[in-house]
Amino acid sequence: MSNSVPPFSSAEYDRRLHKTRVAMEARGIDVLIATDPSNQAWLTGYDGWSFYVHQAVILPLEGTPVWWGRNQDTNGAVRTVDLERTAISGYPDNYVQSTERHPMQHLARRLKMMGYENARIGVEMENYYFSAKAYTTLLTELPQAEIVDATALVNWQRTVKSMEEIAFMRKAAAITQKIQNFALERAEPGMRKNDLAAEITAEAIRGVGDDWGDYPAIVPLLPSGTDAAAPHLTWNGDVMKTGEATFFELSGCYRRYHAPLSRTVFLGKPPAFLERAEAALIEGLEAGLAAARPGNRACDIANALGDAMDRAGIDRGARCGYPVGLSYPPDWGERTISLRPEDETILQPGMTFHFMPGIWMEDWGLEITESILIRHAGPAETFCKIPRKIFVKD
Amino acid sequence: MSNSVPPFSSAEYDRRLHKTRVAMEARGIDVLIATDPSNQAWLTGYDGWSFYVHQAVILPLEGTPVWWGRNQDTNGAVRTVDLERTAISGYPDNYVQSTERHPMQHLARRLKMMGYENARIGVEMENYYFSAKAYTTLLTELPQAEIVDATALVNWQRTVKSMEEIAFMRKAAAITQKIQNFALERAEPGMRKNDLAAEITAEAIRGVGDDWGDYPAIVPLLPSGTDAAAPHLTWNGDVMKTGEATFFELSGCYRRYHAPLSRTVFLGKPPAFLERAEAALIEGLEAGLAAARPGNRACDIANALGDAMDRAGIDRGARCGYPVGLSYPPDWGERTISLRPEDETILQPGMTFHFMPGIWMEDWGLEITESILIRHAGPAETFCKIPRKIFVKD
Repeated sequence: MSNSVPPFSSAEYDRRLHKTRVAMEARGIDVLIATDPSNQAWLTGYDGWSFYVHQAVILPLEGTPVWWGRNQDTNGAVRTVDLERTAISGYPDNYVQSTERHPMQHLARRLKMMGYENARIGVEMENYYFSAKAYTTLLTELPQAEIVDATALVNWQRTVKSMEEIAFMRKAAAITQKIQNFALERAEPGMRKNDLAAEITAEAIRGVGDDWGDYPAIVPLLPSGTDAAAPHLTWNGDVMKTGEATFFELSGCYRRYHAPLSRTVFLGKPPAFLERAEAALIEGLEAGLAAARPGNRACDIANALGDAMDRAGIDRGARCGYPVGLSYPPDWGERTISLRPEDETILQPGMTFHFMPGIWMEDWGLEITESILIRHAGPAETFCKIPRKIFVKD
Repeated sequence: MSNSVPPFSSAEYDRRLHKTRVAMEARGIDVLIATDPSNQAWLTGYDGWSFYVHQAVILPLEGTPVWWGRNQDTNGAVRTVDLERTAISGYPDNYVQSTERHPMQHLARRLKMMGYENARIGVEMENYYFSAKAYTTLLTELPQAEIVDATALVNWQRTVKSMEEIAFMRKAAAITQKIQNFALERAEPGMRKNDLAAEITAEAIRGVGDDWGDYPAIVPLLPSGTDAAAPHLTWNGDVMKTGEATFFELSGCYRRYHAPLSRTVFLGKPPAFLERAEAALIEGLEAGLAAARPGNRACDIANALGDAMDRAGIDRGARCGYPVGLSYPPDWGERTISLRPEDETILQPGMTFHFMPGIWMEDWGLEITESILIRHAGPAETFCKIPRKIFVKD
C-alpha cells in the first residue's frame, strides 16, 4: 500500500487517458495542459505536496503523456506516476517563485520541442493552479499557437466513477464514519475546539485497519453557537458550551479520495426553531435522496430539497451539493456539476456527490449532509450510515 | 483567544494598510484587488477556509477597504475582519463554480459602483487564487480600466515583521519545537508513517498551553529511505525501517503564522556518505546564519552555504530558503525573496526566513533547516533551539 506506486492499474489509467482524448478530439484540442493536481493524479497517478509550484501533465492527442514540474519533484514523479522515466521532465529551480523568470517560459519551450508551436493547446483557465500570469506567459511565448479554455475538461471525465474508484471512496467513507462518530461521542461542555480538531485529524490519518488515512483536502470544520452561521470558520481555542450547536463537516481521505459528511451535535436541549429546521432538513434530504436516481437531473435533487425548505420557510440561498472523489487542497469538490435549480445535468450511475444542504442563518447554523452514489436504479446510496438527526447531549 | 475577533490591534492593521497604500501610490495604482488569502488576512484579519471560491480585499488608495466574497462567507467576515459591517460585500451563490457566470463579473460591477470603471486596477497575476479566467473576465467586464500586475505588492510589505508578528512566530516556533522533538522521539522501526503523521498533526493542533494550534499551510512531510530523495512525497502506511533516514519537515502554526523546521532521524548506523553530507550541511548552515545579518543580501546566505556544499562536492541545485510568516495552503512561504545566488535583496531587521538547504539526491535525502529572524546586528537568531545534526537511533 506504499504511495510509491500508482494506486490504480495501468488499464485504469489507459481508460482515463482514452476517455479524456475523446473529449479533446471533440473540442479540436491537440494537446492539453492539465495543471489541476487532481487531474494530474487522475491521469497519471502523480501525488505529492508540490502543487504550490507550477507543474502539469502534458497530454497529447496521441503518444505518451509527460509529467512536467520542478526538477526536485521529478524524484516524486518517478515514484508515483504510471509513466516511463523518459516521460518525466523537470525545470531548473531558478524558475521557482522568481521575479525574473516564469516556469511557463520553460513549458512553452518544451511544447515547441514537442512540435506544438502552431497547435491548439487546451489550458485550465479556471483553476487554482493556472494563474493569470501563467496564461499571459504562454500567450507571449507561443504567439503562433491557439490557446483555448479547457477548464474542467478532465474533471467532467471524472464525474462517473469506476468500480475501482468507488472502492476507494468506500474506504474513505469508512474513515469518515469513524471520525464523525468519534467527534459526536467526544463533544462535551468544556472541550476545547482545537483539542477536538486534533483528535479528529489524528483519527482520520490513522485510518481504518490497513487502510491508512491520507490528508483530506479541507481541514475539519466545527464552528459552534453563533459561529456556526459561518460555514468556513476554522477552529479556535474556545471551549464547547451547553446550549450551543456545533456542526462537524468532516471527510476521511483514502489515497486522495473523499467522502465528506456533516452532522450537528447540540449540548443541552435544542430550541424549538432548531428542531423545526432539523425536521424540514431531514424531510428535504429524504426527498433529495429519492430524486437522486439515474435519468433525473442534478436540479431534481435541489428542487426536491427546496420544496421541503420552502414549506418550512427556510431560504438557504445556496447550492446543495457538488461532485466528490479525488481531490487536493483547497477543495474536495470536483467543480463541474452543482446541485442547484439551474443545473440540468443528467444523473448517471457511478456519479458521486456531497449532498450538502447546510443551513447558515444570521446567528445559527445546522448541517446534516450525505456523500451519495447514484445507483443503476432507485434512490441514491449513502456512503456512510449515520442517523440523520441532530445528536442531542442533554 | 477566539478567532472571532481579528488577531491584531486596529493600529497594526492601519499601519499595514498605510504601508501598502504607499506602495500602491508609487506604482500609480488606484485600487488593489488582493486575492491571496494571506494578504487578505494580513490587511484585514479575514480568516476562514473559504479561499476555494473567489474572494478579495478591495483596497482603494483612500477610504475604507472592502472584503468581498461569497454570500455565505460574509458571516465569517463579520466575525473576523477589522472592518465595519458595511464594508463586507457578498455575491450570490449561483456565481460559485458556475458554468454560466463568473464571480469576477460581480466584482467588476462592484468596482464600477465604486467609481473605478476607468481606474488603474492592481491584480495579483501570479497567485493560486487569481485564475487566468478571473483575469480575462475582468478584462472583458472593465474594458475602460487599466488592469496592471500587482503580484506580491502586499507580500513585499510583509517581509519585515512587526513585533506583534514576531511574537506570533515565537508561539508558532514553540509548537514547531514541540512537534519536532516529539517526532524525533517517537521514530522507531515498525512505526507506521501515517500513525506518526497522525500524532504529529494532533500535537500541532493541540498547541502549547493556551496557545492553541492552527492548521499549518503544508502537511507534515516525512519520507524515508530512498523516498527521502523526493522532497514533497506525503506519508503512506509503510513502516519505518532500520537502516533508513527519515526527514521531518514540520511547522507549528499560531493564528496562521508559521516557523517551519526540518530535522533528520537515522534508525541504525548512518553510512559514511550521509555523515559527510551532514558535516558539510552543518558547516553550511553555520556559515549561512553568520551571513544572515542586516545589510547583507539574500544571496550572501546562499553563497555562504554554497561554498560549504561545493567543498563537499554536493550540488543541491535549488534555492536554500524563502520568507515565512502568515500563510494559507498550499504554501507557507511568502513568495517574494528567494535565498539564491541571483537574489540581491538587502536583509533587514525583522525579516524572517525558512533557511532551507534540503539535500535531495537520486536515492537519498537529508534535511536540517532553521526558521530565522534577522536581528538588528549580528548573525540571525534561530526561532527553535534543536541541535543541528542527524538524530541517530542505533
